[in-house]
Amino acid sequence: MITPTKDTIKNWFKDLQDSICDGLETLDGQSHFVEDQWERPQGGGGRTRTLKNGDLIEKGGVNFSAVFGPTPTKILEALKLQESDFFATGVSIVLHPKNPWVPIIHMNVRYFEMDNGVWWFGGGIDLTPHIIIPEQAVLFHLSLKKVCDSHNPSYYEEFKPWADDYFYLGHRKETRGIGGIFFDRLSEKEQISKSDRWEFVKDVGSLFVPIYTEAVTDLREKEWSDEDKKWQEIRRGRYVEFNLVHDKGTKFGLDTDGRTESILVSMPPQAQWHYDFKSENQQHKQTQSLLKKGIDWINY
Amino acid sequence: MITPTKDTIKNWFKDLQDSICDGLETLDGQSHFVEDQWERPQGGGGRTRTLKNGDLIEKGGVNFSAVFGPTPTKILEALKLQESDFFATGVSIVLHPKNPWVPIIHMNVRYFEMDNGVWWFGGGIDLTPHIIIPEQAVLFHLSLKKVCDSHNPSYYEEFKPWADDYFYLGHRKETRGIGGIFFDRLSEKEQISKSDRWEFVKDVGSLFVPIYTEAVTDLREKEWSDEDKKWQEIRRGRYVEFNLVHDKGTKFGLDTDGRTESILVSMPPQAQWHYDFKSENQQHKQTQSLLKKGIDWINY
Repeated sequence: MITPTKDTIKNWFKDLQDSICDGLETLDGQSHFVEDQWERPQGGGGRTRTLKNGDLIEKGGVNFSAVFGPTPTKILEALKLQESDFFATGVSIVLHPKNPWVPIIHMNVRYFEMDNGVWWFGGGIDLTPHIIIPEQAVLFHLSLKKVCDSHNPSYYEEFKPWADDYFYLGHRKETRGIGGIFFDRLSEKEQISKSDRWEFVKDVGSLFVPIYTEAVTDLREKEWSDEDKKWQEIRRGRYVEFNLVHDKGTKFGLDTDGRTESILVSMPPQAQWHYDFKSENQQHKQTQSLLKKGIDWINY
Repeated sequence: MITPTKDTIKNWFKDLQDSICDGLETLDGQSHFVEDQWERPQGGGGRTRTLKNGDLIEKGGVNFSAVFGPTPTKILEALKLQESDFFATGVSIVLHPKNPWVPIIHMNVRYFEMDNGVWWFGGGIDLTPHIIIPEQAVLFHLSLKKVCDSHNPSYYEEFKPWADDYFYLGHRKETRGIGGIFFDRLSEKEQISKSDRWEFVKDVGSLFVPIYTEAVTDLREKEWSDEDKKWQEIRRGRYVEFNLVHDKGTKFGLDTDGRTESILVSMPPQAQWHYDFKSENQQHKQTQSLLKKGIDWINY
């Protein structure tokens, strides 16, 4: 296989944004994406695409960006590296569905390199149901495992706990949802080449539309109560807490003067907070009990 | 004047919580505070009082705490100090009113000391109108200046810009509201004794009910439109962003395993996010234009 160049990766991610937006418009069946192109003063830019008030998706964003310039000091310090130019490209998605039975989904695939030869891939897909249906969680993890297994037998067992750890609200002592896979700084390693990593990342990106289609199909027409809607908005509040308090990408973007509206496209359309709220609803209580690390969904 | 002991300060803050809750119940005229007492495993505890669905206040919290134990590592590192026990006590308030014309208010007074002799006071009051009425902003700042001036002619000119800098959303390039006063690490200095600092902090705490009464009186009965309510919820979203991304107290509490429900009592009842929202309403646009540092409200 040919080692991908940064242009190859960038162009593939750009096409991925196109195909995902097409797929999501078809899946939604009602609303359409609106695009904002933006430039980064220090170099590069992106295309932010947002959709609202769909039949399925109440608020969603599909971002593509490819940026370059001097490496931000924070990254250099973290890596203990000297000054160097960087290039970063990626696609990042958060969808907030209208129906409380339909889970929020997040996906990100990204590539980073520096002039000094350092490079890596990162990304992941995770699902945040407001009401967890274990059978659906199993299906979701099986789909992720299948893609992981087709590349490396250790990927799923490595990237699934990584998602559990990453998508964790320490201050709430709960996971964001049912997790998924998360990986970062994937570089060359033993028998794994750059093109091997790239083939894997492409498959993760390509999985997005099919895996979300599977996750929503049985749920989008399900009736909900006012109690479910309130619960959804409270759980969306937790999503806000995760993204603003814990998410490294959000934090880094806001700290380094990134494009705020593109970064915070991940925010839900509405959220609620109630002091010390505890739902008495059995399905909500079951959900709360399943927001923990280390659940083996494959063998659930 | 007698130098206050930590017990004197703690007891005064406890009484302040009582008198503020009484004052706010009278002002609200409909709802009442509910109290949760809590203990901190490492030492101390607090009383969290919350009120909801009032005639004036939709969601509000008045916290008192007095905690002690080994000083958290983060503080010792920041101060470059050796291991030492600490004691901290304070009252902290956030009120989210129902009517979009009525501003959110925040107040905090606190005292911190360590066994090694280090001590300081901190605190402040700031106002976050969803719709800024300049005349009201002037009155609010005049009241703060009056209290500051009665203690030290330099306090207002020092603590007003401190609030501008502190209550600032860097990622939005806007202030949280019209500011107020903010101060931290007030210790002995030249002619200013510990009891001088304490008298000032007491006056700030005592100002809370009168200053909020003044801020709401002409506004609480004002009619609002659906557009104003939506704007309020969007601005509440910015309040969430400030508290979760920038506020040092919130961050420190969440990082050091504080009582999450007491810390996040500051969250609004609801918030909204819309991609790249811009209000076309003139009053909202004027508000947006006034969310900047350095406005001289006294001479506005």
